[in-house]
Amino acid sequence: MRAVDLIRKKRDGGCLTADEIRFLVGGIATAVVPDYQWAAFLMAVVWRGMEPGETAALVEAMLHSGTVLDLGDIPGPKVDKHSTGGVGDKTSLILAPIVAACGVTVPMVSGRGLGHTGGTLDKLESIPGFRVDIDLAAYRRIARECGLVLAGQTAEIAPADRVLYALRDATATVESIPLITASILSKKLAEGIDALVLDVKCGDGAFMKSEADARALAASMTTIGRALGKPVQALLTRMDEPLGRTVGNALEVKESIACLRGEGPADLMDVTLGLAAEMLVVGGAAADLAAARERCLCAIADGSALERLRLVVVAQGGEPRVCDDPEGVLPRAREVTPFRADRAGFITRLAAWPVGQASMLLGAGRETVASRIDPAAGIVLRRKPGDAVAAGDVIADLHHDPARAASLPAALELLGRACEIGPQPPAARPLVIDRIA
Amino acid sequence: MRAVDLIRKKRDGGCLTADEIRFLVGGIATAVVPDYQWAAFLMAVVWRGMEPGETAALVEAMLHSGTVLDLGDIPGPKVDKHSTGGVGDKTSLILAPIVAACGVTVPMVSGRGLGHTGGTLDKLESIPGFRVDIDLAAYRRIARECGLVLAGQTAEIAPADRVLYALRDATATVESIPLITASILSKKLAEGIDALVLDVKCGDGAFMKSEADARALAASMTTIGRALGKPVQALLTRMDEPLGRTVGNALEVKESIACLRGEGPADLMDVTLGLAAEMLVVGGAAADLAAARERCLCAIADGSALERLRLVVVAQGGEPRVCDDPEGVLPRAREVTPFRADRAGFITRLAAWPVGQASMLLGAGRETVASRIDPAAGIVLRRKPGDAVAAGDVIADLHHDPARAASLPAALELLGRACEIGPQPPAARPLVIDRIA
Repeated sequence: MRAVDLIRKKRDGGCLTADEIRFLVGGIATAVVPDYQWAAFLMAVVWRGMEPGETAALVEAMLHSGTVLDLGDIPGPKVDKHSTGGVGDKTSLILAPIVAACGVTVPMVSGRGLGHTGGTLDKLESIPGFRVDIDLAAYRRIARECGLVLAGQTAEIAPADRVLYALRDATATVESIPLITASILSKKLAEGIDALVLDVKCGDGAFMKSEADARALAASMTTIGRALGKPVQALLTRMDEPLGRTVGNALEVKESIACLRGEGPADLMDVTLGLAAEMLVVGGAAADLAAARERCLCAIADGSALERLRLVVVAQGGEPRVCDDPEGVLPRAREVTPFRADRAGFITRLAAWPVGQASMLLGAGRETVASRIDPAAGIVLRRKPGDAVAAGDVIADLHHDPARAASLPAALELLGRACEIGPQPPAARPLVIDRIA
Repeated sequence: MRAVDLIRKKRDGGCLTADEIRFLVGGIATAVVPDYQWAAFLMAVVWRGMEPGETAALVEAMLHSGTVLDLGDIPGPKVDKHSTGGVGDKTSLILAPIVAACGVTVPMVSGRGLGHTGGTLDKLESIPGFRVDIDLAAYRRIARECGLVLAGQTAEIAPADRVLYALRDATATVESIPLITASILSKKLAEGIDALVLDVKCGDGAFMKSEADARALAASMTTIGRALGKPVQALLTRMDEPLGRTVGNALEVKESIACLRGEGPADLMDVTLGLAAEMLVVGGAAADLAAARERCLCAIADGSALERLRLVVVAQGGEPRVCDDPEGVLPRAREVTPFRADRAGFITRLAAWPVGQASMLLGAGRETVASRIDPAAGIVLRRKPGDAVAAGDVIADLHHDPARAASLPAALELLGRACEIGPQPPAARPLVIDRIA
């Protein structure tokens, strides 16, 4: 078998066999298929797409390029959630303890933020002492003891995905539904889960701008998951404005803890509980979504969800007092600059993408993989779409270090572009657009 | 400027500026644009194509990646010919001395054969002592003194093309009209020529199987040549059967010398004189094609064309007696195996591709770039389409070394597939299909 013949086959619109895909993926580790041949193949896939059978074979080959965890020794269902990423999206931090408290183990491997979106690992690391680089033995132990574990990807998990992800990033071949499907599922299925819930976001602040693209990705992931014998349930959610009231690492941890105390904002709780309920149902821990939601609310009300967060913070080396006094424990920015309304009216729009960009400029995110993050930096939204404002009212607080003052004008300019004020409040639109199974 | 953004632009069907193309080509030598980014870009070009302005910029950037010869000190026009390659295509060996004898200098840089097609360099090297690896100083001197030079590509000429050609070969991105155009023109324009004549072949034994593809390539090359200020004239010729009566290196040299003695087969002379006449006209050495053809025939009749070949053979270290006694000087195969007609009738078809494959199996061509060539091996066609045969008549002689006996059954099988015999002779079809300027 020769890679060039397989590239040609895909270039001409053909469908590769599972053996052919295994040959290509196996060739990554052995250098039998060099990166330039993979680059050409990836572009041919962006062009021609993949049949579901090809995508499933790609997931399997990438999954088996490294260690596939077996958490069979942990009793009960193991379910994870994956989000395609958004601005202010801290649902993982909230739902993992809730779901664990309801009896479903959540073995979660997360990523870092890049560009305008944040990453769960960066958020967790704003908790003093919290370590995300844990080995597989610790991962397994913490999952069993706490009912949840919040870790970074290790070198053992789907190494082929790490190579291909870097290559796609450098060759403009990220935007391909089969390649996205393979990247996400190969990593997630290596975690040892029984089922997966997906939050596929669409809109201004999401990777998929259009609902049609998001639907296609959700359909691909659920189809391929089913083909591989792992139930995958997707929610299609709107990412037109930041989720909740905070954007930035420590700020989002603080808001997540408020949610676990029953003090979360409605939009954030709506998406979080929607996803958590799906996890309980797909894990067989609740008969239906209504019952599942009820259980989640109980876990918040009786404090058991917050207690799970405390357990995992301790297990991963973090300061557990963060659960009682987040303000006192988490890093705080030395300066806060207000962004004010320039006229009176109703906020009709607060676009996610520029808010995420502004937060990145303040130090909360990475412009490149080498950028260092300021855990205290970010944006607190005091007002959100639908709220009335008078001219001069503070809409958002920009949290930043004085050393970042030079970035302030650009950040304020981005917020000015993000925020629209009109004479009438906007029509309410549900955040959860659809369920796709 | 970032390569990934330019790949994305082409992926999305955009048109790159000349600056952007210069950045990508310049990045080859400096490794600023690694081969995997080029591989993805090449596949995006196969997918999306290029506007004429982009292709012209690509030719210029590749041309200026190395030395661009200036042969301005040689008086008179400098014209070369390029063929897209075929089976038994030895026109270069015949027309270069003819055109030189008519007062047009032919500075010719050629390639080696791969697969079923032969290469001019391999044919020349079957002349004992003949050296094709000459440096630029010798190239210039021989062109001036002999009126022609027959050399291999040096490292100084269009180095970007060497890198990209190898990359295209490994990534299934050869079949793209703008990329083919850029590869050919960048090499040819670096030779210091004033004009170029192209033999764009189509049919069974050609790179372009369909006439439409061949027309598109011819149109691209003439358009881009014009855009760069170099007249390019293309002939569209048929490559359904081998050109002339021989396939194989020494065998083709011998046939070429016969042609220069006025003893060439009609089909081969028709294409050779057609191309040579175009070279004289585009070089300004003849008023029209009829006059040009007449001059070429004179150069054969008065022996001046053969004399030019003798000059260049001497200048490049070869044994000049090859011009007088090719049979005595050229290597000869130790065995000749006949391929016979299995029935009586007229030969209706003798397909070029399987004949070329058979010749390669006998040792005349390369299966891979590392294969060694047997200069004596090849096929002599005693009968061609239109000829009548009785059952058992010899149609072709297979020249080979006894060590190649194991390949004989496969070679004979290929000839059996190539050759069709029917009750009526086939309709005559002209070899030169069209002129494209």
